[in-house]
Amino acid sequence: MAAPNIPSTVSTKNELKLARSLQQKKFRDQLGLFLVQGPKLVGELVRSSWPVETIYATGIAMVKHDLPSAIALPPHELDRIGTLESGNEMIAVARKAAVGPLKDLGPEELVLAMDGITDPGNLGTVLRVADWFGIKRVWCNSGSVDVYNPKCVQASMGAIFRVTVDQVDLPELLKRQQVEGATIFHATMGGASVFSKDLARKAIIVLGSESHGISAEVLQVGGQAISVPGSGGSESLNVAMAAAALCTEFSRQRGLR
Amino acid sequence: MAAPNIPSTVSTKNELKLARSLQQKKFRDQLGLFLVQGPKLVGELVRSSWPVETIYATGIAMVKHDLPSAIALPPHELDRIGTLESGNEMIAVARKAAVGPLKDLGPEELVLAMDGITDPGNLGTVLRVADWFGIKRVWCNSGSVDVYNPKCVQASMGAIFRVTVDQVDLPELLKRQQVEGATIFHATMGGASVFSKDLARKAIIVLGSESHGISAEVLQVGGQAISVPGSGGSESLNVAMAAAALCTEFSRQRGLR
Repeated sequence: MAAPNIPSTVSTKNELKLARSLQQKKFRDQLGLFLVQGPKLVGELVRSSWPVETIYATGIAMVKHDLPSAIALPPHELDRIGTLESGNEMIAVARKAAVGPLKDLGPEELVLAMDGITDPGNLGTVLRVADWFGIKRVWCNSGSVDVYNPKCVQASMGAIFRVTVDQVDLPELLKRQQVEGATIFHATMGGASVFSKDLARKAIIVLGSESHGISAEVLQVGGQAISVPGSGGSESLNVAMAAAALCTEFSRQRGLR
Repeated sequence: MAAPNIPSTVSTKNELKLARSLQQKKFRDQLGLFLVQGPKLVGELVRSSWPVETIYATGIAMVKHDLPSAIALPPHELDRIGTLESGNEMIAVARKAAVGPLKDLGPEELVLAMDGITDPGNLGTVLRVADWFGIKRVWCNSGSVDVYNPKCVQASMGAIFRVTVDQVDLPELLKRQQVEGATIFHATMGGASVFSKDLARKAIIVLGSESHGISAEVLQVGGQAISVPGSGGSESLNVAMAAAALCTEFSRQRGLR
């Protein structure tokens, strides 16, 4: 199935089995690798400084997207590795980011902290929102969905290569940041309107899980409850929409133009 | 499979076939009906004034959610009607909203206009954003995804029962609203910062399609280009996140607290 004139590098069965195994968190954790799918996202990966192990593609996709270093695979093999419903024409195996020591907040830094986010699509969209507004770090409380879940990677539209995501012990970390002078904001339904507040610049916005909101452990650390004023009928905004709305007002007050 | 003591109303094969056919737009259009799935959404439907034809549920779900008027069906029959991957325990057949003549904008009305939105999940999320911010009407240019697509209905989380959605000839409608004194805003990448503008109160925010942005026909009508300032690396916000960000600033300027 390789296009004419494209040398098809031979992949061992084991290499393909390894790539396929990365659909599961267990193997992503063991191997320190994850999948990046589709020409658009693989393109973002290649343009970033992110470490890439292997790129698999159909012969046609290699030519179309000018990736001679990819390994040619027939479409049915790519379908077995990938998780997309259609269009598995290009799949990269990338190395997970190295986990380093967590730095305290910078003097004007804004961080998003996810207290138990469970939907990979939501987390990916939150990363995209963070990236849009120039937020460099997102913290996920332990128990949150794996950021390297294929659905999260895809929903991030490449933001995952630019925003640092750390799995953390959120209550402990928030305590330390509070001591260091950061202001903690809890995004909750009954909080003060975000429009009515002079928002601190060294700050963490905590967003609760989709079903349980912010946990008791995190609330106990203390913080200011804020909300996005609404006048309609919906019970709540979803976590990514709430992030977008809050980041909008934080950005406005920071003078983003 | 009906729970004990629950009378199981007999449904004809034809009724179930009709319900199942509503997964397809063709039959939703022909029959003027659509599917609402899951206890949470069916609950929202029942509490709204929206016309309901039939509710199907497992015997257990009927008891649990106190819906004695539902028609009991075994889980495998519900799975055949529904489109959810899991949890098809309750499905309603509802009647589509009557299409009336389109009213011009009220003196302080804000409307969202979708110029060719194609992803049903995105449209559902836009409805949820509109509902949150008290926006009563969303216009979709012809060629947009069907608002009664099951994925859109589910993503709206019930907002579809509160926000009026009209399929319109958007260029024509915008021209008329402009004559009537409404301000048209185009949400585009290169527009003026939404933070830098004194936003008109009788206004329409036009959001482009996910892949092609705002169409030439709509741009030709004229309007003010606005954008959500970003400082990060992402090429764009998705259409629902852009709607959330823009509605946040419009709401702030309108004094929503």
